[in-house]
Amino acid sequence: MGIKKNILVIPGDGIGPEVTTWGKAILEQIAADFGHDFTFDEALMGHAAIEATGNPLPDETLEKAKKSDAILFGAVGHAMYDNDPSLKIRPEQGLLKIRKELGLYANLRPILLFDELLNASSIKPSILKGTDILFFRELTGDVYFGEKVRSEDRNTASDLMIYHRYEVERIAHKAFEAAMQRGKKLCSVDKANVLESSRLWRETVQAIAKEYPEVTTEHMFIDNAAMQLIKDPKRFDVVLTANLFGDILTDEASQIAGSMGMLASASIGDGTGFFEPIHGSAHDITGKDLANPLASILSVALMLEIGFGLKEEAKVIITAVDKALKEGFRTNDIADETTNPYKVLGTKEMGKLLLK
Amino acid sequence: MGIKKNILVIPGDGIGPEVTTWGKAILEQIAADFGHDFTFDEALMGHAAIEATGNPLPDETLEKAKKSDAILFGAVGHAMYDNDPSLKIRPEQGLLKIRKELGLYANLRPILLFDELLNASSIKPSILKGTDILFFRELTGDVYFGEKVRSEDRNTASDLMIYHRYEVERIAHKAFEAAMQRGKKLCSVDKANVLESSRLWRETVQAIAKEYPEVTTEHMFIDNAAMQLIKDPKRFDVVLTANLFGDILTDEASQIAGSMGMLASASIGDGTGFFEPIHGSAHDITGKDLANPLASILSVALMLEIGFGLKEEAKVIITAVDKALKEGFRTNDIADETTNPYKVLGTKEMGKLLLK
Ligand SMILES: CC(C)[C@H](C(=O)O)[C@@H](O)C(=O)O
Ligand SMILES: CC(C)[C@H](C(=O)O)[C@@H](O)C(=O)O
Repeated sequence: MGIKKNILVIPGDGIGPEVTTWGKAILEQIAADFGHDFTFDEALMGHAAIEATGNPLPDETLEKAKKSDAILFGAVGHAMYDNDPSLKIRPEQGLLKIRKELGLYANLRPILLFDELLNASSIKPSILKGTDILFFRELTGDVYFGEKVRSEDRNTASDLMIYHRYEVERIAHKAFEAAMQRGKKLCSVDKANVLESSRLWRETVQAIAKEYPEVTTEHMFIDNAAMQLIKDPKRFDVVLTANLFGDILTDEASQIAGSMGMLASASIGDGTGFFEPIHGSAHDITGKDLANPLASILSVALMLEIGFGLKEEAKVIITAVDKALKEGFRTNDIADETTNPYKVLGTKEMGKLLLK
Repeated sequence: MGIKKNILVIPGDGIGPEVTTWGKAILEQIAADFGHDFTFDEALMGHAAIEATGNPLPDETLEKAKKSDAILFGAVGHAMYDNDPSLKIRPEQGLLKIRKELGLYANLRPILLFDELLNASSIKPSILKGTDILFFRELTGDVYFGEKVRSEDRNTASDLMIYHRYEVERIAHKAFEAAMQRGKKLCSVDKANVLESSRLWRETVQAIAKEYPEVTTEHMFIDNAAMQLIKDPKRFDVVLTANLFGDILTDEASQIAGSMGMLASASIGDGTGFFEPIHGSAHDITGKDLANPLASILSVALMLEIGFGLKEEAKVIITAVDKALKEGFRTNDIADETTNPYKVLGTKEMGKLLLK
């Protein structure tokens, strides 16, 4: 029996539209193949929304988001804002606000390692082989959302790094539950030797760990974790961390998968789930047909599995990606010296290949 | 003509005492060989100081530090505090306080790559070869020193991430000056798309960059930097960043040098310089004669060069380290499958070898 879902596509900025086109096309194909009824709507966010409405997250987008069953998102950001720190309205505010408004407190980032790409990484294949990490990054707290102050003379600026116990508890439970379904190991990352918010974090995780006695819990400082992640990635199973530390560690971990162009993430919480590549808007390659659509396509796999409970459909997608890689096809970001130059595909060709 | 210097040794906790013993021995040998007059004093800090006096930075240590010409430091920290986030007096407070009190606002961390250790890293030698990065980590501001608050019900905790323009300016000048002496490239790392303190950081660095038109300046977000650092470390020359981001990036970068056991740092500012390995107290190997003394020995080279302007003496040390590695000698942390097991040395043997 097919299911009926209402999916909002937010392409965003830069390469966002180029890659979400293919994510959406895959969803349509899956619907056709499995007899589901997926309906789509589209909305603006980020720089694109600022241009059109003056607001990085227009009310209309938020309304549509709240009513949808899942959101497929591309990326936000634009060089213009990066070069001018004094601009008050910024594309990223749209992304941060939608995370907060939808209560998307848990960002899941699986580090999926395709054997074919073992060599695309700057890390030695022998170190990588067998790595399987699932990150739980807290997404609606921390220094991202604490009060921001600029002094009147503009010479002092601050951001409040702040956590409430319930925020740590709810994501910790999700991470421990995931660990129970996996390798039963959880590493919580903080900077409790310096930060009070990290001490609250550690205390809370220690308390919750007692409810999951089968899970081996370890606590690691962020500086050490940033090092261990490339020294010995296999030692990690579930990694639980705060918003800022998670932002840094997961981008770093993208090198394990060979490229950021391969990694997808699912943000979940109180309601509608939000699915996106972990890569950014990548202005430098926008419109050049160079972007890797696989992260958006793998975001769709996460939507199907985590958002809709459609495991088989998700598997079909992952198998298709695996097959394309096994056959030697690559986008530019994951090609290396050994790649057959005729098999280096543009965004569109790779998208079309996956559709088949 | 020899010079006269008064050096304070602060061994600290864990493997700190084991490794600083050899740093000090090397200083004595250099004094003898080059006709310098180095006098030594010793003081407590961290857990060792808490045990003896109840205070992680006793007044006596601070007095001695202020009067000395340079400080050779080991490490602080103890598992007891890491496991109990509620302890109020903590070893790291000693280190943070001495950085603040001595005005050590610039922490220089050169990533020194010994050819012999190219293989000890988890990163591919082809990616590493030719890497030469000098980090400038701000050391007396940021979320490390901003106000820390725990609510009365203990359910909310915060740390203020805060920067003043002058704090960014003074370290930026030092970093640009260093870039002028090196590859004339500077990468400033922040999170200006989210943090107000980073926007102040970026603005200030942009303004100062105009005074160094010969230096090519780039700005990178911390998440991207954590990724680029392992994807393509050769692209970096001088990296300038805030306290927390610098803590994370430099530990991560230690994998480039094969091991944290090889990296030294110099903290400089208004007065006395402070020289230390970037590794921590490493309780797990304390007292087992397994620690790598080379980071402490290389800290001494930084002291001689940056603290005392003794370039030749510094070079003698680096050459000696290079020679030991070329002859195949390793400590446990930098040994690999190809190492002759008879050449894997303990802390003491490696220290003695270097003395020769
Ligand atoms: C664009 C930016 C605000 C965002 C973040 O820092 O969360 C991005 O880096 C991410 O990881 O989703
Ligand atoms: C021990 C700790 C407080 C310290 C820091 O975070 O600065 C250490 O990690 C370092 O990098 O010197």
